[in-house]
Amino acid sequence: MVRPGGRSARVQAAVHAAVRELASEVGRDALTVPLVARRAGVTPSTIYRRWGDLQELLSDVAVERLRPEASPGDHGDLYADLTAWAEQFLDEMASPAGRSYIRDALLGDPDGSNAGQCSAYAAEQLETVLARAAGRGDVTPDVETVMDGVVAPLMYRILFRPDGLDAPYAHRLVAQALGRTGP
Amino acid sequence: MVRPGGRSARVQAAVHAAVRELASEVGRDALTVPLVARRAGVTPSTIYRRWGDLQELLSDVAVERLRPEASPGDHGDLYADLTAWAEQFLDEMASPAGRSYIRDALLGDPDGSNAGQCSAYAAEQLETVLARAAGRGDVTPDVETVMDGVVAPLMYRILFRPDGLDAPYAHRLVAQALGRTGP
Repeated sequence: MVRPGGRSARVQAAVHAAVRELASEVGRDALTVPLVARRAGVTPSTIYRRWGDLQELLSDVAVERLRPEASPGDHGDLYADLTAWAEQFLDEMASPAGRSYIRDALLGDPDGSNAGQCSAYAAEQLETVLARAAGRGDVTPDVETVMDGVVAPLMYRILFRPDGLDAPYAHRLVAQALGRTGP
Repeated sequence: MVRPGGRSARVQAAVHAAVRELASEVGRDALTVPLVARRAGVTPSTIYRRWGDLQELLSDVAVERLRPEASPGDHGDLYADLTAWAEQFLDEMASPAGRSYIRDALLGDPDGSNAGQCSAYAAEQLETVLARAAGRGDVTPDVETVMDGVVAPLMYRILFRPDGLDAPYAHRLVAQALGRTGP
């Protein structure tokens, strides 16, 4: 674990920033460890020691980029909250940048912890939506049911089967997960 | 498209065989294009010209390894056929070899056609199961419903959220996809 503000945290911030800057300047495929090290003001061996290789570093950066920036919006009821969330999730993950981050997160991830973190982000957001609905007195499905019924089909189709992946499809998944046949 | 028996098909077979042999002898991470070329009796430039790079070659080999070897078994009714199929799919895909092939298939796949092929294999097998049930006079869900309800959660959890991924979970997914609360 990294102590905030310590040297280790400063190195991490500088290296992540260097990856993001260089990816937008020269493109992700042109990145190398020496290039990133030079921009971050660290030695290549600092990067190898901490991240192992470029793919693991890109995986860590991708997970940071996939971290949600805000709590899910409150639209007054569970169906509206979940459809809005699913639509935004689909927009972000199915975008070229989103797809690229998902692939990076999956790839340089020998122990699966980065992929697990991506999934945990989605589960935390859904917990917020479901707790809010429970607070309104709604009967809600549990979070794993929504992961299976909404997040899994969206992510599976983004990675493997992209035809027909649009907002109405996301809405149908939410309706089914809530045991409704339509909005 | 490759004409069966032609030079192109022979090169492909030799290169795929070289990858499989070398992967079991020296390990997947030690593979290089020159090593594969030497074993296959082709020049490295033949491999670069045809596959672009090692990752695309590994992706093609992975898709071949993920191709189902047999038609889904006939167990007398739709629930039994789908649970048996889902259990076998989970066993194969969640194994260390299966996970490694899925990652390879996703990675060296710039246009998504290899990932699409993996998904098509599953859909074809499910079509067979569903057509057989329809032939018995059963009312069946359509194949995309089973993809969303069974294949997507299994694959999502294999890649992102492996806790609790076992045969009883696969059975519950099948029961839900068939609109049943239990076997």
